[in-house]
Amino acid sequence: MAPYHNEKPNTSAKWKVKAFQIIFEADTFWGKFFDVGLLLAIVLSVLAVVLETVSSLKTKYGDLFLTLEYIFTGLFLIEYILRIVIVAKPRNYIKSFFGIVDLLSILPSLIGIFFLGAQSMMIIRSLRLLRIFRIFKLTQYLGEASQLSRAMIASKNKIIIFMATVFILVSILGAVMYLVEPPESGFTNIPKSIYWAIVTLTTVGYGDIAPITPLGQSIASLVMILGYGIIAVPTGIVTSEMNQQRLMKMSKSCPNCATSQHMENAQYCYSCGSKLK
Amino acid sequence: MAPYHNEKPNTSAKWKVKAFQIIFEADTFWGKFFDVGLLLAIVLSVLAVVLETVSSLKTKYGDLFLTLEYIFTGLFLIEYILRIVIVAKPRNYIKSFFGIVDLLSILPSLIGIFFLGAQSMMIIRSLRLLRIFRIFKLTQYLGEASQLSRAMIASKNKIIIFMATVFILVSILGAVMYLVEPPESGFTNIPKSIYWAIVTLTTVGYGDIAPITPLGQSIASLVMILGYGIIAVPTGIVTSEMNQQRLMKMSKSCPNCATSQHMENAQYCYSCGSKLK
Amino acid sequence: MAPYHNEKPNTSAKWKVKAFQIIFEADTFWGKFFDVGLLLAIVLSVLAVVLETVSSLKTKYGDLFLTLEYIFTGLFLIEYILRIVIVAKPRNYIKSFFGIVDLLSILPSLIGIFFLGAQSMMIIRSLRLLRIFRIFKLTQYLGEASQLSRAMIASKNKIIIFMATVFILVSILGAVMYLVEPPESGFTNIPKSIYWAIVTLTTVGYGDIAPITPLGQSIASLVMILGYGIIAVPTGIVTSEMNQQRLMKMSKSCPNCATSQHMENAQYCYSCGSKLK
Amino acid sequence: MAPYHNEKPNTSAKWKVKAFQIIFEADTFWGKFFDVGLLLAIVLSVLAVVLETVSSLKTKYGDLFLTLEYIFTGLFLIEYILRIVIVAKPRNYIKSFFGIVDLLSILPSLIGIFFLGAQSMMIIRSLRLLRIFRIFKLTQYLGEASQLSRAMIASKNKIIIFMATVFILVSILGAVMYLVEPPESGFTNIPKSIYWAIVTLTTVGYGDIAPITPLGQSIASLVMILGYGIIAVPTGIVTSEMNQQRLMKMSKSCPNCATSQHMENAQYCYSCGSKLK
Repeated sequence: MAPYHNEKPNTSAKWKVKAFQIIFEADTFWGKFFDVGLLLAIVLSVLAVVLETVSSLKTKYGDLFLTLEYIFTGLFLIEYILRIVIVAKPRNYIKSFFGIVDLLSILPSLIGIFFLGAQSMMIIRSLRLLRIFRIFKLTQYLGEASQLSRAMIASKNKIIIFMATVFILVSILGAVMYLVEPPESGFTNIPKSIYWAIVTLTTVGYGDIAPITPLGQSIASLVMILGYGIIAVPTGIVTSEMNQQRLMKMSKSCPNCATSQHMENAQYCYSCGSKLK
Repeated sequence: MAPYHNEKPNTSAKWKVKAFQIIFEADTFWGKFFDVGLLLAIVLSVLAVVLETVSSLKTKYGDLFLTLEYIFTGLFLIEYILRIVIVAKPRNYIKSFFGIVDLLSILPSLIGIFFLGAQSMMIIRSLRLLRIFRIFKLTQYLGEASQLSRAMIASKNKIIIFMATVFILVSILGAVMYLVEPPESGFTNIPKSIYWAIVTLTTVGYGDIAPITPLGQSIASLVMILGYGIIAVPTGIVTSEMNQQRLMKMSKSCPNCATSQHMENAQYCYSCGSKLK
Repeated sequence: MAPYHNEKPNTSAKWKVKAFQIIFEADTFWGKFFDVGLLLAIVLSVLAVVLETVSSLKTKYGDLFLTLEYIFTGLFLIEYILRIVIVAKPRNYIKSFFGIVDLLSILPSLIGIFFLGAQSMMIIRSLRLLRIFRIFKLTQYLGEASQLSRAMIASKNKIIIFMATVFILVSILGAVMYLVEPPESGFTNIPKSIYWAIVTLTTVGYGDIAPITPLGQSIASLVMILGYGIIAVPTGIVTSEMNQQRLMKMSKSCPNCATSQHMENAQYCYSCGSKLK
Repeated sequence: MAPYHNEKPNTSAKWKVKAFQIIFEADTFWGKFFDVGLLLAIVLSVLAVVLETVSSLKTKYGDLFLTLEYIFTGLFLIEYILRIVIVAKPRNYIKSFFGIVDLLSILPSLIGIFFLGAQSMMIIRSLRLLRIFRIFKLTQYLGEASQLSRAMIASKNKIIIFMATVFILVSILGAVMYLVEPPESGFTNIPKSIYWAIVTLTTVGYGDIAPITPLGQSIASLVMILGYGIIAVPTGIVTSEMNQQRLMKMSKSCPNCATSQHMENAQYCYSCGSKLK
C-alpha cells in the first residue's frame, strides 16, 4: 500500500526538500495543511461527479460542474507532476498503488477535455474516491486498518470455504425454486432463481421476486432461517480472529531468534525458550 | 452526562434540602416517587405529541391533546425553575446536558402557546424523549451503559475506518450500477444509485429500486454477499472489545503467585489460595 | 419451569405408580413411548388448527378437522385428568407453568364444542404449541437451554439499555422523517414513521413505506448504516456473555463455603480460599 | 466425506498405478492438472444446465447446449468407469459420498438421452455442483472446513433448541397476526401468516405481505426488534464455539509449571521456558 514511504527526495535542492516534506510527509504544519486540503479537493471533486448525474442539477449548474471539472483536473495534474519531479525514484512512485490511482483519477478527465465523452468514463473518474485512502496512511488509523485487514487475511481460507458453500447452496436452491414455482412469480429461469436465492439468503429481500405457491413459500422459509443461521459463521470467523489478533497484539520480539507475536504475559520465547526482555 | 451529580443544594434552608433530595436524588421514598412520576410524565407527553399527528385522532381528541400540552408544559416549566432555584450552581446545571434538554423540551411548547405554530417545532418537542435518559442515571443501569459506551469508544477508530471503507464502497458501486442499469429500473442518477447500494449492502432491501438487467442483478448479488460478509466486521470489533472490557474487569493479580485474571468479586487466589488485596 | 419434578405419585397403588412413571418420567420404555406420542399429538393438533384456516382445505376436509379437534381435545382432557389424579399434590401441578398450559390447550376447544365460536379462540388454541416445551425438559437439551437462558438473564440489564436506546432512536428518527417526507410517500403520521424507522433500522425493509425525497433518502441511508452498525451490540453482549458462561461452566463447588462457578483451572475457592477437590 | 482416501490401486499394473495417481491423488503435475480440469468441467457443465433455462439463450444456442450435454455426460461417464476400474475396492467407492454424487451427476443425462425428458430431472442434474466439493478435499482448505464443521457439530444441541424456539415463536406470532390483520393485507390464513412471521423475524422483509392496521404494525415492530435481538443468539453460539475450538488447539500443558494454553507451534513454555513435549 505504501511502497515508497522510505523514499527520499531526489536532490538536496532546498525547494525540493521543502516540497517533499509538504507533499509526502505530514509532520510539519504545511504538510498537514496540504493533506487536509487534498482530502477536501478529493471529496469535492467526487461530489461534483456524483451530483452532475442528477439531471435537474445538471440543467441548472452545468457550467459550474464543467468549471469544477477543469479546476480539479488541473490541480490533480499539477500534484501528480510535482510528485514525479520531487521523489527520488519516480518509476517506483508511478508503479505504486497510489501512483496508479493518482494517474487514473486525472486521465479520464484529461481525455474527456480533448475528446468529449467523459460521460462513459464516470466509473474511472469515481476512482478518485480511492485517493481518500492516501490520507489514512498519514494518521493513527493505519495501525487499526492493518489490524482489521490482518484479521481478514488470517481468516481468508475459512471465508473462501464459506463463500463456496454459500454459492453451491444458492445454486441448488435456485434450481429447486425454478422447478417449484410457476414463471408468473418471477422465477423465469435458473439464473434469476439463483439471484432470488441470494437476495433471500442474505436477508436483503427486495420482494421483486417472491414465491406464491405454498410449497415455494415453505422452501423460502427454510432458506430464510438458514440464512439467519449461517450469518453467524462469517461473524464467528472474524470475531474469533480478532480476539486472536488482540492476544498477539503486544508483539514482543525474542532477542535471540527474533520470533514476534508472543502472548501478552509471555516470559520466555515459545520458539527457542530464551528469556524475553 | 451527569456533570452535576456531586452538586449540593445552594442553602441549608430545610425545604430546599428536602426538595433537592426529592428532585436530584433517588435514595428516599419521595425521591423515587418523583423519578417514576417524572418518567411517566415524559412518556405521556411524548405519546401525546406522537399521537397528535394521527389525523383521525386529532379530529376526535384535538382539545384533549391541547390540554395535555398545556399541563405537561406547565409541569416541566415548574420542574425546570425548581431545579434552578434549588441547585447550588444554577449556571452549571443550565449549561449541562440535562439542563439544555430540559429547556429544549419546554421552549417550543411555550413559544407555540404564544405564537401558534408549534407544528413546525415537532422535532424539538420530540427531544422530550431524551429526558428519559435522566431516569437511567439513577439506576444500576448506568454501570452497564458506561461499559457499553466504553466498548464503543475504545473501538471508535476501527469503526471510523470501517465506515469510511463502506462509504467508498457504496459510492463506487453506485457509480457502477448507474452505468450498468437503464434509468427505467430507478437508477436515474448516482446519488440514487448510492442510496440503492446502501439499501442493499445493509441488507435492508426495500425493493423500490431493484436491478432488472442480468448484469445488474449479478453485480447486486455480489453486493449482497459482500454486505452479508462485512456485517461480521463491526460485530467482530464490538464483541472483541467487550471481551476485553470484561477481561479488564478481571485484572486483579495475586501478590503471592502473580496469577492474574481473578474474578471481580474474588477474595482469594484461585491458583494458590492466598488472600488477594 | 418444572416446579414439580421432585413430585412423587400420591399413592403406592400399583397402577398409579406405573402411570406416574409413564406420564411424568422418561426412564422406562413406555415413559419414552408416551412422551414421543404426546409430542406427535401436540404437533398434529397444532397442524390441524393451522391448516383449518386455509379456506380451500377447510371446504374439502372440514369434517376431518372437526373430528381431529374432538379426538385431540378428548386425548388432552384425559391426559390432564390423569395427571391430576396421579400426582401427589394436584394443586401444585395445576398452578405450575405446564399445568396452566395444559388447561389452556383444552379449554377453548371444550368451550367451542359446547358454545360454537371456537374461531375467535384460535390464539389460545395455538397455545398448544407451548406444550412442546414439555418434551424438552426430559432430554439432554435442558442443560443447553438453561445455559442459553442464563446468558440471556446475565445480559438482561445491557439488553434493556440497548432496547431503550433503540426505542428513543426510532422515535426521534420517526419524528424527523415525518417532517421531512411528504405524506405521499407513506409518512402520514409519527406512529407510522416510527414503524418505518423500526422496519429500516432492523434491516427488515418491507418497502411499503419508503422515502422519495433526496433529503429523506439521505436520512434513511444514515438510519440503515446505523442499524447495520448497532446490530453488533446485542451480538457482542450475548457472545461475550456466552464466553463467560463457558468459562464458568465447570461449576466446581467449594466444599467449605458451597460457592459454585469456579473457573476451569481453579485450585482454590476464590471466596474462602479453601482447597477445591 | 472421504472414506476411500487410504485406498490403494487394485493392481500393480503400471498404467493403473499411474492413472490412480492422476485421478485420486494430487501430488504429481498430472494429478493437479486432472483436478483443475475436472473442476472446470464441473463448473462449465453446471453453467450449461443453468443457462439452458434462459429462454432467449436456449432459442439461440439450443444445439450448443445439447452438444455440451453429450460431451460432459460422456466425460463424466468415462471418469466414473475409470474410477471403478482403478480403485482396489470398487464397492466402497460406489457406496461412498462422492461415488453416489458422481453417479447422480451422470444418471439423469444418460436417461434423458435415451428417453427424452431431462427437463424434469434438472434438480438431480444440478447435483453436479456437489462435485465441486471433490476438489476441496485435495487442498489445504479441508482443515479449515473441518474446523468450521466441528464448531457447528459442537453447537448442534444449542442450535436445535434455538431453532425450535424460533419455530414456536413464529407459529404463535403467525396465529396472532392472522386474527389481528384483515385478509386484505395478505394474512389470509395461518400458514401464510407464519410465512410472514419468518420473513419478518429473519429481517428478510419482502413486503409482499405487510400489516396495514396500527395494531398489526405495532406487533410487527415487536417481531422485528425481537428478530434483531435474537440474531445475536446463533452468532453468539457459533463465535463462542469457535473461540473454544481455537483454545483447544492451544491445549499443550507445560510439564514443568503446568501452564496450559500454549500456541500450536510452541516449543517452549512461555511462562518458565522449559521444553514442551
